[in-house]
Parts: sequence; C-alpha cells; structure tokens
Amino acid sequence: MNITLAQAEAAIAAAKTKAAAIDTKMDICVVDAGSNLVAFARMDGAWIGSVDISFKKAKTAAWFTMDTAALSPLVQPGQPLYNIEHSNGGLITFPGGVAIKNAAGEVIGAIGVSGSTVENDHTVAEAGAAAVK
Amino acid sequence: MNITLAQAEAAIAAAKTKAAAIDTKMDICVVDAGSNLVAFARMDGAWIGSVDISFKKAKTAAWFTMDTAALSPLVQPGQPLYNIEHSNGGLITFPGGVAIKNAAGEVIGAIGVSGSTVENDHTVAEAGAAAVK
Amino acid sequence: MNITLAQAEAAIAAAKTKAAAIDTKMDICVVDAGSNLVAFARMDGAWIGSVDISFKKAKTAAWFTMDTAALSPLVQPGQPLYNIEHSNGGLITFPGGVAIKNAAGEVIGAIGVSGSTVENDHTVAEAGAAAVK
Amino acid sequence: MNITLAQAEAAIAAAKTKAAAIDTKMDICVVDAGSNLVAFARMDGAWIGSVDISFKKAKTAAWFTMDTAALSPLVQPGQPLYNIEHSNGGLITFPGGVAIKNAAGEVIGAIGVSGSTVENDHTVAEAGAAAVK
Repeated sequence: MNITLAQAEAAIAAAKTKAAAIDTKMDICVVDAGSNLVAFARMDGAWIGSVDISFKKAKTAAWFTMDTAALSPLVQPGQPLYNIEHSNGGLITFPGGVAIKNAAGEVIGAIGVSGSTVENDHTVAEAGAAAVK
Repeated sequence: MNITLAQAEAAIAAAKTKAAAIDTKMDICVVDAGSNLVAFARMDGAWIGSVDISFKKAKTAAWFTMDTAALSPLVQPGQPLYNIEHSNGGLITFPGGVAIKNAAGEVIGAIGVSGSTVENDHTVAEAGAAAVK
Repeated sequence: MNITLAQAEAAIAAAKTKAAAIDTKMDICVVDAGSNLVAFARMDGAWIGSVDISFKKAKTAAWFTMDTAALSPLVQPGQPLYNIEHSNGGLITFPGGVAIKNAAGEVIGAIGVSGSTVENDHTVAEAGAAAVK
Repeated sequence: MNITLAQAEAAIAAAKTKAAAIDTKMDICVVDAGSNLVAFARMDGAWIGSVDISFKKAKTAAWFTMDTAALSPLVQPGQPLYNIEHSNGGLITFPGGVAIKNAAGEVIGAIGVSGSTVENDHTVAEAGAAAVK
C-alpha cells in the first residue's frame, strides 16, 4: 500500500531530470501514504525556504489524497476551506503537491516540489509521480 | 560565501544611521546565506513585536534569495503563493527584508528591518544592505 | 529600568574582546529586563547551534534575575527544580547566562554567551556584564 | 564550503550499503554546513520515528561541528551541558550524527542516521561521511 524507497528515488530522479530540462532548481520531497517522509533532495542552488514548502506540499497531498492544486480555489477568502492552512502544523495549498498512485489507482504516497513558479513546480511534481509504476 | 560579522555590523550601523535620519526606531536583523543569525540590534524605543518580524523578514529574504517586497503581490488571495506564510515556521512577506549580495552578485546573507511603515522599513533595509561591500 | 542599546553594544564589545583574549569564538546575546532581545553578535566561525543557546541563557537569566550557573545544581534529578527547562519554550540552566545590573543593583537585562566550555562561556558573559555601568 | 547534492547522495548510498551489510534498516539525513537539509532516505521498513531523529542528529552535528557521540557524556545529569537538548527546537545527543569534512578538513555538512542501536547508527553514519571526498 505504501511507496517503496526505490519508487521514491525513481520519482526524485525523474523530477530532477524534468527540473533540469526546464532550467529550474528544485526541492523535491516524497512521502508515503501515511504522510511520513521517504526521500528528499535539494538540487544545488535551490532555495532553502523551499525545503519546508516541498515537505508541506507532499504532506498536504498525502493527507487529503489529492493534488494541492485542487485545494487552491477552495481555500480563498469566502470559500469553504478558507484558512485550512492552520491545521496539521501548516498546509501548503498551491500547486506542486501531487498524489502518487499505483497501477490499481490507490494513493501510495505523494510528491511535493518547490523552487520555481507554481506551474513549474507542478510540472516537475507530475513528472516525478509519473515515474512510479 | 557567507557574510562576516564585520560586514553584518556595518550593515546594522548604516541601517541605524538611516533610521535616525528619517526619525524612526527600528529592529534590525542580519542573517547569513544559510539563514542563520549573525547580528541584531533593537534601537531604544523600537517595538518589541518587531524583533521577531525583523528576524522573519531577514530569514525570508535569505531563504528565497530575494527581497520580501517581491513576494508581497504573489501572496495575496487568488495569487499563486497565497498563504505561503504558513511554511518555515512563519514567513513575513511584506517589505523590509532585503538580500545582501557580494561584489560578484552572490547572495551572502540578508537584512530584515521592522519598526515603522513598510516603506520606511524597506528604505532602512536597503541602506543596511548597501553598506556591505 | 531597562538596558539601552548603547549599553548592550558595550557589553557585546567587551565580551568579544574577552572571547578573543581566551581564543574562543562566541555567540553573544543581550536582552532587557523584560527578556526581550536588544542586541546579538555571532563571531565568525562560532557554532550556529549556539545562537539559540545564547538566547536561552540570556532569557533564563532575565526571567529569574539570576545567573544561569545558580540554577545548575537545582535542576538535577531529585532536586527541587528538576526539568524546569520544559517551561518558557525551553530554558538553558548551565553557566553562561549572567544578569546585568545598574549602579543601584537593579537587574536591567542579561547577557547569554555560548560557544566554548561553560566555564569560558561564563567568563565571557561576566566580562560583558561588567562593561555596563 | 557546503556539501553538494551529489556528495550527499554518495553519502546516503554508502550508508545504505553499510546498513544492509549489517542487516539494519535506517533513516539517513544529510544537511549542509548551515544545517539546512540536502538529502534524505528512509529504507523500507525503517522506523518512522527515526525520520526526525536522523534530522536532529544531522543538525546537531552541523550546529556544533562535531559528532553527536562527543556530546553524550557532556549532557548527563551533573555534567556541564545537562539538558542542552532543550535548545534549537530539540537536539539529539546520542551517537549517530557525524560531521562531514572536505579534504581541507572543513566541516561542509553532517549526516544523521537512526534506526538501530546507537552503535550501529554511528557505524552507518561514519560509512556515509567517509564516502564524501
């Protein structure tokens, strides 16, 4: 049910390749289905502040078994989940956290990427998640 | 790669001079490139609540190698980095945190200033950063 | 009733001189009587982990208007204040925190020093406190 | 002055090899000289509770530029650094955190290992640190 270290390392390798291909430097975090850390890499020169953001993106995606991009519209002022970020020691609800599923479609973990625009972060996270078979 | 104490003290001295010149009382914090504290001064009568704000401004600027003023528009409701402040134990994303660069243009630390309007805070932080050669 | 920034800077300057004289590299923190930060300096090469320890030594000394060395025997297993370190977000109860008094003998702040043996830390803190008239 | 991601990944690979050789499952964390995370791996079946311990061991070693094993005798009841663990958001002061040095002998980061006995943790951390040239 949980992602293995080998799968997490494959996700990070794919994410690093995609990050380099689009000329970005990323912090990349992979957690298991229980939202516990499995693997992490900070590319040389990537923001230090993105370490924690990549953690919180991955954890948020695992905690709610959905991409963080799906939460973004729901957390705005006046919307149903406004200020949900105050829970769980701090959520990140903008794009860059992506749920990782196995062949059966079950969520076995999540990847969080931070270090560039949220569009780039999400693109790199998708590349990482896609590397897990 | 990291700011020295002598450089940090020069930044604080210049910031204090500017703060006095514009009739303000400031909390002034300098961190290194790793976002670890190097020097701090609270001017007599400056707000106690600004101690932590100056810390978080300096750390935010170092964590993301940019002035906090550059983050302000991006963190508003509906914008890409909305509620990023929940990361890293608390960011401050309004003006007053300024990256400090060496002659080669590398970020070697950051200065955070709090105690007046954000415009004044930023002006004083700029004066401090400019004193580092 | 409270230490001024000029007095705090004099304490840090004296502490730095003493630290250099005994061939140590120190983190030096000065707080006011309310335990709020006034000034700080980390000497080049001093431990990063001592930033927080110098803060907690200074705060502990100010919170209880006594040197941290006076607390050390009281916090041991079986002694009256065992595990008092769990209060106030974390105390440090070994030597290196020294109360700063004015000419009238009133506590106007405290200095915390960390970076070497606790004996050296205390010696440097004493030198800093003695510089405040 | 700071460890690179390639060096950190080499350290983790060597630590994993050693961990497998002695039939253990480890959490392995590498931080840079500023104590900021660079890379992490949790071996399949390793304790979840060791994620944070490996972080704190690596950070403690980086913060004080020494192996955590060197701190263990100093933090016992009655000893000079008793209850230092209350600083820096929590230290780990038993073996398993090892400073990583470059060829010039400068500390460029640290590795923290947790998941077995402290002797095994230290052995695996040493193997990881030795892989960094």
